Amino acid sequence: MAIHQPPQPADLVLSAAWVVPVVPGGAVYQNCACVIRHGRILALLPRAEAERRYQAAETLHLPDHLLMPGLVNAHGHAAMTLLRGLADDLPLQPWLEDHIWPTESRWLGADFVADGTRLAIAEMIASGTTCFADMYFYPATVAAVARHCGIRAQIAFPILDFATPWAATAEECLHQGLALHDEIRGDPLLRIAFGPHAPYTVGDDTFARIAVYAGEVDAAIHIHLHETAQEVADSLATHGERPIARLHRHGLLGPATQCVHFTQFVDGDLDLLATTGARVVHCPRSNLKLASGYCDVARLRAAGIPVALGSDGAASSNDLDLFTELRFAALLAKGLGGDATRLPAAVAIEMATLGGAIALGLDSEIGSLEPGKAADLIAVELTDPGALPLYNPLSQLAYTGSGSRVSHVWVQGRPLLREHRFLTLDFAAVTASARDWQTRIAATSAP
Amino acid sequence: MAIHQPPQPADLVLSAAWVVPVVPGGAVYQNCACVIRHGRILALLPRAEAERRYQAAETLHLPDHLLMPGLVNAHGHAAMTLLRGLADDLPLQPWLEDHIWPTESRWLGADFVADGTRLAIAEMIASGTTCFADMYFYPATVAAVARHCGIRAQIAFPILDFATPWAATAEECLHQGLALHDEIRGDPLLRIAFGPHAPYTVGDDTFARIAVYAGEVDAAIHIHLHETAQEVADSLATHGERPIARLHRHGLLGPATQCVHFTQFVDGDLDLLATTGARVVHCPRSNLKLASGYCDVARLRAAGIPVALGSDGAASSNDLDLFTELRFAALLAKGLGGDATRLPAAVAIEMATLGGAIALGLDSEIGSLEPGKAADLIAVELTDPGALPLYNPLSQLAYTGSGSRVSHVWVQGRPLLREHRFLTLDFAAVTASARDWQTRIAATSAP
Repeated sequence: MAIHQPPQPADLVLSAAWVVPVVPGGAVYQNCACVIRHGRILALLPRAEAERRYQAAETLHLPDHLLMPGLVNAHGHAAMTLLRGLADDLPLQPWLEDHIWPTESRWLGADFVADGTRLAIAEMIASGTTCFADMYFYPATVAAVARHCGIRAQIAFPILDFATPWAATAEECLHQGLALHDEIRGDPLLRIAFGPHAPYTVGDDTFARIAVYAGEVDAAIHIHLHETAQEVADSLATHGERPIARLHRHGLLGPATQCVHFTQFVDGDLDLLATTGARVVHCPRSNLKLASGYCDVARLRAAGIPVALGSDGAASSNDLDLFTELRFAALLAKGLGGDATRLPAAVAIEMATLGGAIALGLDSEIGSLEPGKAADLIAVELTDPGALPLYNPLSQLAYTGSGSRVSHVWVQGRPLLREHRFLTLDFAAVTASARDWQTRIAATSAP
Repeated sequence: MAIHQPPQPADLVLSAAWVVPVVPGGAVYQNCACVIRHGRILALLPRAEAERRYQAAETLHLPDHLLMPGLVNAHGHAAMTLLRGLADDLPLQPWLEDHIWPTESRWLGADFVADGTRLAIAEMIASGTTCFADMYFYPATVAAVARHCGIRAQIAFPILDFATPWAATAEECLHQGLALHDEIRGDPLLRIAFGPHAPYTVGDDTFARIAVYAGEVDAAIHIHLHETAQEVADSLATHGERPIARLHRHGLLGPATQCVHFTQFVDGDLDLLATTGARVVHCPRSNLKLASGYCDVARLRAAGIPVALGSDGAASSNDLDLFTELRFAALLAKGLGGDATRLPAAVAIEMATLGGAIALGLDSEIGSLEPGKAADLIAVELTDPGALPLYNPLSQLAYTGSGSRVSHVWVQGRPLLREHRFLTLDFAAVTASARDWQTRIAATSAP
């Protein structure tokens, strides 16, 4: 005999034609509802049951849409979006030395970072990213903009052994970064990480200091590592060891370490990752475009190493659409691995969601639609010709369309995008500011 | 002294913030107008001058858009769009033998081809393709649907040495194909080509006959060639020669021959292409997804061999967005070639437009915005966050966004898409039919 229970309160009962919870892997639920209260997922259950069991302040049914966890972009330089397309089709070093660095040294400042970060966040929200890992100068500005927009972020303050407009020395980087870390502590959406730029821009003393400080404050370490074969060769010539071995010697490898790019590895490198629990962030489009190499994700995954997905900065990659990034990752794994069964759709989607959450140490909070987790989720509209017919929604997500299908975005239950319209951003102002920077930067940059 | 000339008549004066004519290569014109009369481009000139010199029935200015030639999708199987996502993450042979062929043998017919082709054309128009090369059964149905939708097409009738629902023998394929060729002759938008399926499905006698007939009627030959290493190895074992050499022996290689895929080649193969003038169609996403291999486009281009771009059928690739295909081509050329300067944005765009026109023998008609050519052009809206800032429109086209930015499409001056709305297609009916096929096919296909 069924006992009648009074409806429980909820803030939002959200239902859609399909729900992809990511956990359990490969699952697709039809006509399922996600019940949200106080920014968290209360339950995932059949729509009819949800409407019977919950008394919601708001009910939203999306009949042509798919609900899934928001994407996690595990590496980027948000403010560099202002340099998108300024210099293309160049190798890494001339691209950096002749174009990016001169432009940065001319224009970099808190205003550049505020406007560039806001543009990047607009693009990420519009294409379904609800959490991003950033590494750039003026991290306090990045934090302020992210907080204003309501997006979740891990903000790595950069550490380099040379002067930048933001900090004159590595010591000053650490000082400012630690102050920001203290200030942000307890923020529900933001975390501060240590961002040693790369093995070739950070010396041994600084690495040693980072290991101590990051351990003390229990913060993640986010670093460009093994991006190119040249980097590894140079390290062997200069330090007599591979960059990852050098990091390990300084105590920098652990489960909170995020190794970005990692296009070069030998078995010993995998052993170091596996024994320390360090994570890898794969940026396939940036690696291809700069001809940096290819990160063999399938081999990393087979070795049990968690892999996340990152767009890198728009100055190299050139957009922040993680759905497109995901497709590149999935197709490259098959094509370059010579095996069409590698990185199937469900796994690629997991890499772009839960994989990112694991890399950032946030998998108890986000990365899947499970009761108790934060309500960071997106709706993907599947009505365009490329979404038809629809035998398998996972295939449609991984292999067709782009982030432009994302219609709704919530972070911790707060709506950031509704019917493709921004709720926390003034997009006209973002556009005007981007055009203004474009005019100024174009007037001073090399042809 | 300026002599006042009376305005000349025009059907449409179309202007936009940017015009990318493709010829001259790399050019970007600002505030330029394209003047159209009787389906052809009369002139390309500054907007103010166009409005002074021409008296147009219609004037349209697109202030946030870029005008460019419509994209040419040089290989696909339009009707297979109905099988999109039915079976993914499988190697070529099990994918074909266990999924695609059984489903085709159950469902293939003129109605399947009509509905599938219409869906594919909707997707192609919506993403900026104005001309497509097709190879599929019931080519007369493909021609009828293409004509109804107003899109340009090269329709290759398939030729195989085994029975299909469309034709019992190769002889019957040729008979039906030649009849269609005669019927279509003189059509301003459609051409019929010979479509020997592949070296492993067509015998020597049939190849010899195709060479004779195609020469007699002056038609193109469109063939899957060197798609996989296995195909080449099998040919060496069976015929004692590489597939391309076998084609050459039968007289099938010439400037009207379109070799699709071509992931495998040695210097001798390049010599055959170069001396005969045969063209290559590159389908990077399909090749990656089925782990078929990689076509080294930069090496082909360096050898002077024209290369076009194709999506392949949506059953393998899985969407028909040629902008995404173009990005895969450009990034793979850099990443796999180990040289970031390869296939720069302008060249990738040329490959997707003029390159396709050259491959199909249509470069006197389409592929660039030049006076005298047909008015096959598209408008790309550049207002989304991923399009900002905009230093170089070519970079934005090649490396950001997707075909979803295409807002307007004209073929031979006739509008097919306006503000993202179809003018020659009933998209609600297309959607309903795709869902109906989905239900029927899903009910009978292997899990």
